[in-house]
Amino acid sequence: MKDHGLKIVTIGGGSSYTPELMQGFISRCETLPVREIWLVDIPEGEEKLNIVGAMAQRMWDASPYDVKVHLTLDRREALKDADFVTTQFRVGLLNARIKDERIPLSYGQIGQETNGAGGIFKALRTIPVILDIVKDMQELCPDAWLINFTNPSGMITEAVIRHAGFEKCIGLCNGPITVMKEEPGMLGGKQEDYHFRFAGLNHFHYHRVFRKADGKEVTKDILQRMAEDDRANMVNVHKESYMADQLTAMNCIPFSYHRYYYLYEEMLAHQLAEYENHTTRAETVRAVEEELFELYKDPALHEMPELLKKRGGAYYSDAACTAINNIYNSTGEMMVVNTRNRGAIASLPYDCVVEVSSLLFSDGPVPLVFGDFEPSERGWLQIMKAMEETVIEAAIEGNYGKLLKAFQMNPLIRHGHTAQAMMDEMLVANEKYLPQFSGKIQELKVKGIIIHDEKVRAICAAGL
Amino acid sequence: MKDHGLKIVTIGGGSSYTPELMQGFISRCETLPVREIWLVDIPEGEEKLNIVGAMAQRMWDASPYDVKVHLTLDRREALKDADFVTTQFRVGLLNARIKDERIPLSYGQIGQETNGAGGIFKALRTIPVILDIVKDMQELCPDAWLINFTNPSGMITEAVIRHAGFEKCIGLCNGPITVMKEEPGMLGGKQEDYHFRFAGLNHFHYHRVFRKADGKEVTKDILQRMAEDDRANMVNVHKESYMADQLTAMNCIPFSYHRYYYLYEEMLAHQLAEYENHTTRAETVRAVEEELFELYKDPALHEMPELLKKRGGAYYSDAACTAINNIYNSTGEMMVVNTRNRGAIASLPYDCVVEVSSLLFSDGPVPLVFGDFEPSERGWLQIMKAMEETVIEAAIEGNYGKLLKAFQMNPLIRHGHTAQAMMDEMLVANEKYLPQFSGKIQELKVKGIIIHDEKVRAICAAGL
Amino acid sequence: MKDHGLKIVTIGGGSSYTPELMQGFISRCETLPVREIWLVDIPEGEEKLNIVGAMAQRMWDASPYDVKVHLTLDRREALKDADFVTTQFRVGLLNARIKDERIPLSYGQIGQETNGAGGIFKALRTIPVILDIVKDMQELCPDAWLINFTNPSGMITEAVIRHAGFEKCIGLCNGPITVMKEEPGMLGGKQEDYHFRFAGLNHFHYHRVFRKADGKEVTKDILQRMAEDDRANMVNVHKESYMADQLTAMNCIPFSYHRYYYLYEEMLAHQLAEYENHTTRAETVRAVEEELFELYKDPALHEMPELLKKRGGAYYSDAACTAINNIYNSTGEMMVVNTRNRGAIASLPYDCVVEVSSLLFSDGPVPLVFGDFEPSERGWLQIMKAMEETVIEAAIEGNYGKLLKAFQMNPLIRHGHTAQAMMDEMLVANEKYLPQFSGKIQELKVKGIIIHDEKVRAICAAGL
Amino acid sequence: MKDHGLKIVTIGGGSSYTPELMQGFISRCETLPVREIWLVDIPEGEEKLNIVGAMAQRMWDASPYDVKVHLTLDRREALKDADFVTTQFRVGLLNARIKDERIPLSYGQIGQETNGAGGIFKALRTIPVILDIVKDMQELCPDAWLINFTNPSGMITEAVIRHAGFEKCIGLCNGPITVMKEEPGMLGGKQEDYHFRFAGLNHFHYHRVFRKADGKEVTKDILQRMAEDDRANMVNVHKESYMADQLTAMNCIPFSYHRYYYLYEEMLAHQLAEYENHTTRAETVRAVEEELFELYKDPALHEMPELLKKRGGAYYSDAACTAINNIYNSTGEMMVVNTRNRGAIASLPYDCVVEVSSLLFSDGPVPLVFGDFEPSERGWLQIMKAMEETVIEAAIEGNYGKLLKAFQMNPLIRHGHTAQAMMDEMLVANEKYLPQFSGKIQELKVKGIIIHDEKVRAICAAGL
Repeated sequence: MKDHGLKIVTIGGGSSYTPELMQGFISRCETLPVREIWLVDIPEGEEKLNIVGAMAQRMWDASPYDVKVHLTLDRREALKDADFVTTQFRVGLLNARIKDERIPLSYGQIGQETNGAGGIFKALRTIPVILDIVKDMQELCPDAWLINFTNPSGMITEAVIRHAGFEKCIGLCNGPITVMKEEPGMLGGKQEDYHFRFAGLNHFHYHRVFRKADGKEVTKDILQRMAEDDRANMVNVHKESYMADQLTAMNCIPFSYHRYYYLYEEMLAHQLAEYENHTTRAETVRAVEEELFELYKDPALHEMPELLKKRGGAYYSDAACTAINNIYNSTGEMMVVNTRNRGAIASLPYDCVVEVSSLLFSDGPVPLVFGDFEPSERGWLQIMKAMEETVIEAAIEGNYGKLLKAFQMNPLIRHGHTAQAMMDEMLVANEKYLPQFSGKIQELKVKGIIIHDEKVRAICAAGL
Repeated sequence: MKDHGLKIVTIGGGSSYTPELMQGFISRCETLPVREIWLVDIPEGEEKLNIVGAMAQRMWDASPYDVKVHLTLDRREALKDADFVTTQFRVGLLNARIKDERIPLSYGQIGQETNGAGGIFKALRTIPVILDIVKDMQELCPDAWLINFTNPSGMITEAVIRHAGFEKCIGLCNGPITVMKEEPGMLGGKQEDYHFRFAGLNHFHYHRVFRKADGKEVTKDILQRMAEDDRANMVNVHKESYMADQLTAMNCIPFSYHRYYYLYEEMLAHQLAEYENHTTRAETVRAVEEELFELYKDPALHEMPELLKKRGGAYYSDAACTAINNIYNSTGEMMVVNTRNRGAIASLPYDCVVEVSSLLFSDGPVPLVFGDFEPSERGWLQIMKAMEETVIEAAIEGNYGKLLKAFQMNPLIRHGHTAQAMMDEMLVANEKYLPQFSGKIQELKVKGIIIHDEKVRAICAAGL
Repeated sequence: MKDHGLKIVTIGGGSSYTPELMQGFISRCETLPVREIWLVDIPEGEEKLNIVGAMAQRMWDASPYDVKVHLTLDRREALKDADFVTTQFRVGLLNARIKDERIPLSYGQIGQETNGAGGIFKALRTIPVILDIVKDMQELCPDAWLINFTNPSGMITEAVIRHAGFEKCIGLCNGPITVMKEEPGMLGGKQEDYHFRFAGLNHFHYHRVFRKADGKEVTKDILQRMAEDDRANMVNVHKESYMADQLTAMNCIPFSYHRYYYLYEEMLAHQLAEYENHTTRAETVRAVEEELFELYKDPALHEMPELLKKRGGAYYSDAACTAINNIYNSTGEMMVVNTRNRGAIASLPYDCVVEVSSLLFSDGPVPLVFGDFEPSERGWLQIMKAMEETVIEAAIEGNYGKLLKAFQMNPLIRHGHTAQAMMDEMLVANEKYLPQFSGKIQELKVKGIIIHDEKVRAICAAGL
Repeated sequence: MKDHGLKIVTIGGGSSYTPELMQGFISRCETLPVREIWLVDIPEGEEKLNIVGAMAQRMWDASPYDVKVHLTLDRREALKDADFVTTQFRVGLLNARIKDERIPLSYGQIGQETNGAGGIFKALRTIPVILDIVKDMQELCPDAWLINFTNPSGMITEAVIRHAGFEKCIGLCNGPITVMKEEPGMLGGKQEDYHFRFAGLNHFHYHRVFRKADGKEVTKDILQRMAEDDRANMVNVHKESYMADQLTAMNCIPFSYHRYYYLYEEMLAHQLAEYENHTTRAETVRAVEEELFELYKDPALHEMPELLKKRGGAYYSDAACTAINNIYNSTGEMMVVNTRNRGAIASLPYDCVVEVSSLLFSDGPVPLVFGDFEPSERGWLQIMKAMEETVIEAAIEGNYGKLLKAFQMNPLIRHGHTAQAMMDEMLVANEKYLPQFSGKIQELKVKGIIIHDEKVRAICAAGL
């Protein structure tokens, strides 16, 4: 199979990210011999698939490589004999994100699709679908690797590896890549002057940085600068200032998303203000997306447009191509991936999935040990991992009690009876995408759960 | 030494609890040969010490036993050759509790002296004092046992065992005792019909219950009843109803104090209402205490008054006497104590202190293994233990950064810059009792930290 | 069921131990209401079953209790609705023991049926049978407890609990009981003056001893005395003197069987001398057994004869009755049993079976934590447990490679090609009892494996 | 300091290996700017130091680099401001090796200086000296790295890191390098076609091999070939054939030295035959060494002679230079080194030293996780590590009891009273090099311990 070039399958191929992915493959085609690309989507995404698919083919046609881009709604046909499968789909599309953000905010709680209540519901919607895909892969392309960059990437990878027992899966995030690109500037250096060691969970990792020239750890220097200006902040996270006293007391560097935890009040206040102004993240993203698809329609365009970088997912697709290349060529290059822990973080379960600096070989990622965390970071990681485990079980079993327990652990949710009310409302609003909870949702509807947020009510009324 | 009867020393002997302790010794005197009791207090407590000391001597005089009660402000004299030392002191007296409760509430945060911001400050004040006591014990009575029932009992025991390396220490709480007395009634049985297994942390433990007659685990039955009416709730915890859906999804029984975590919003709302009505717990307790001391002054009284039970600390002193008896007679009886983990809870550090069902022998407590927690309880325990470790280090080192990190982990604190402001205000308000933070407190005062709560401001102005 | 009294089933009921078991039940009958006893055996054991069964009925008839002893070869009939099942069978009878002892000795290696090559083969023969029994129990009496005292008790219990997933099983050994009875005499005290804490593996445990009167640990005192004279040695272990310098450097007390490891050369030399003199243990036991059955035939005998104590298994049956009583009455009494580790010995796998001081309740045993071992004992326990795990897998899978790996780990086997030859010979000699290895055994026979020891050759020739 | 080039110090600089070390530095001098080399030795080694030192200087003089080789007996002068310190000394010189080999053999036990009784005594002699060196380094060059290749490298590294708390130390062995060079040939490929993952202990590690081209694990293929012909065997280990049935049942590849454990009888027989023929390894090595020094004396020689490769330590010095280069240039290159475990091997203590594939950065080695071992390898590693820990404590404390316990655990020693006699004789024979045991050795001499082996007796009589 490999002799004739690689068959790459992208689930959620109609995504606005696809051109970045194409560019990634084109630029690596000398060492990564792609032969055919299959973009797969669902009927609701067919129009976008066609637009972005045509754009993708134009990109390849403008390259020196003879690669055919196939567009299909038939996932099984695409998966047959695939070598690598990437996943970048969003169950429920941007409307789901609107629900994840607006319902919590209507309760005065953090509305955000990767952490807190929103992230939990994104996991509930996505995990059954990814497990279905894996079932198909086990039958149709059991030797293929699954490179997931659908969020919440850590929980999805754990569901695939630990629950479906499919070991050839890695989860990616653009966070660490962004960090490694931006932080060196804070010290007046370049990425290649430092090496980084990451460990933790997806959207909840810490890292340490060392200067190659003399082995000096510069973690504290970066924390000091961050206290003044966090230049490595992710574009989609509101850049609230950390407490300087906390940063300078730390021995490892937090990630942008830690703001939701360490600056809970400020981040919530900011979101509530946005909510009042009708400018939640989902709505911003939708506007950018529409603009992107307008660009893609241009038959003269055969290069990835600059605008895509504003989308918030910069480097995601590049990470996928790098990972595929590292696996295919067994480079042993270091990447930060979601993979089984195996002792890399000694205070988390041996078998769980963590996001950790790893070497990539053709037999998969091998994590580097990170060493001890101080109790202050260890405790956070432990409750977050335990919450993830609870969410995953709830998602697979359709278990309402476990879902409630996950809500009752999540540090971004203010616990109590209204949290349960919020959860119930989210269940009802996501009915279409949560078949595993259908019985419970029926019960809730009978009880007369009302969706408070107008926009969400409208989406649900439209059957979306 | 033991041949001539035991020398018991009680630090904080002027406490209103002392008569309960006396009654405990009197009722066990056949097997536990007490010879002399030394009640120790500080100058500020001398008046109370004299009142309660006279009462204590009257109780012994009315008993068949010839025991002398010594009253002293000289701790070292008292500790010389002691066999058992009990600690029930409160650094800063009830005024400190008022600070622990009112400052957080003035910031709209949970005000409570054993968990959250209040509990952290109680630890900061108490740990240096207990370490001083232990230092004296290592010199003056190195073979004595320290039976601590000053709160936060878990953190204090961990400071003594892990940081001072004094292994002969156990921490007690009346919580498990109350649970074991009250829960059987929920199933229509008696305490002796069941056996209980507790594991977790002080004020943050879970337990399972088994019916002796047939070995059936009745944990789920109790959870079911609790969802209707929690008859084993601690008197000093507002009895807000748990979510039934959460309880019935659990495999172990939470403790009254879990309400602060699982019902955060309701408990906070209740406290804020009390705060507005000037009825915080400290103030209620102060009223009961004053009444108690009036009773104790009566030279005709030589029995523990009924009113003491309303004080909120019922069974505390009884637990101390039981523990002393179990150690002295090496009974191997099961008690729930704070002691080194040693694998009893496999997901917490081997060396940390946990509150766990243990057998008491003359060589100390031996914990029973508890077995796995589900992730939903495991994660909670792990972050709470990590927070405790961080608080203890902050308390010993006078480390402001670690203190802030502990605040930033505590699940009862809404994290962000105002939490730091609240913390700073608490530091300033506790200046007298936090010598280890004096430098930082000076800095804060220079910055012009203001105490917002009027009552606390008055207490501080009075130099208390 | 329990209302009408208990149904007890004993697999291997034709054993010479049965009268001790009867005596145990008779003496406890006030609190342990036995109603019927079923003694089960295989056709080869029918004659003995009838003799010992008649004796058993006579014992009950001479007691105040109306209990019927049923004798049967139909295991499934017996197991139906049983409350407790005890197992004391020996697959291959005493002839198997002769093989376990004589083949190794013919290779100049330790011959002994519970450790070394002999113990491994006893496990290979017994594990498939016990798993069959458990399968019947899961169908016919799923709520019954299995009290195993067939050796190697630890491995058998682990096979049942970990591999068959049948949790209601405990493994017993008379070793700790003997130790607790005999050691106090070495200090001039009585059993009730001390408490003991055991931890380790079956026939490979260590323990510590504490004086109740003052809590002093007397472990070192006992080690000192043992160096002079080990009065607690098991009757069936040759009483070679330990090295005094080793004992006095230890912090816990070894068990009689540790001699095979710590005094390898002496124990081997002793066995080889016995082998030359035709006095291996199996042969001694056979003579005692024959004498016992002669006694049992006497219709006037209705009491357990003194001779039984010489058999080497003193207290075994008593241990079984005590365990059954503790479970039935949920006494919480401390016993040393084989049960899941669950953190009691932190350096052994959480899920493995260990022999450890535990409290017995109606829901099963709850181990006490033992605390750290020094590396010198920890390493031994770890390799022994790992070897057990390898043997169990080999026994269940009929896996020759794993069996060889187990041989190559066992510290009582001198590793090398002759060890493999010895192993192959043992496989052939045990053909009848190792159906799981039948393919491999055929191969070996084709290769022309010869049995060197005359007696074993004769046994095999007789189809035994 | 680094700006002016590196100061390298070699303790034991008079070793015959030194020219290989020089060659290693010369060939790397473009990226590793060595400025000065200090060869340090003890008075007994002065003559050799002068010969090999002159040779070393000639090698540099023949190179394009201007490097001065200093020869000194003053270790402290040499260590001042060093950048890297390498250690390749042998306490007691080759005579000590003769003792390590011949005394055990005179007792019919394995005689070998890196495992078994000999290895233990090499550790006893070396650990106090290395700790002295580290003490000097902490004072004179606290930022320097210590690159140890004195055996037993694992125990020495653990003593330095864990007991002296000096973290900047790595231990090297030429074993993994040899394996990686030789094994690919068994599959008809080259080293660069495969990647290797090692984990375990020094002279007791296992590894897995993966083909880069397709990620296929070829571990089983190599095991299959090894069963026929182990082409990667170390030159100094007698090449006895492994049992094919064991190899093919394994999931990781053993190291040459595993023969002493898995083929105990054959290896012992081979050694005893050599012993009878007066051809123990020490004596062979001595002959090669004498020949080497004759060559080194030749003022015309300025290149490393071929003969050095026969010495048995091929690649050792190269490994040291590679490690120094990787650290200096923070290459992140993978090497197999002795370093703290930190979770890389989950079943060994977190803090212990293991030999494991690691990335080398300027801040030190970062191990890769290895994943689970099967019980059959796990148990071996655990007892070996525990034995090492016991030896190290005995060496540091001069603790006879712990030493005996280590002997009683070591799988290459047949345990029993004669093992103690052998140990006592080894203590007496090493009197000069074991000051920490001097009291005990006096006692033993008073008891009249006799040295049985003639050659050893002669060495001791000569005060060596």
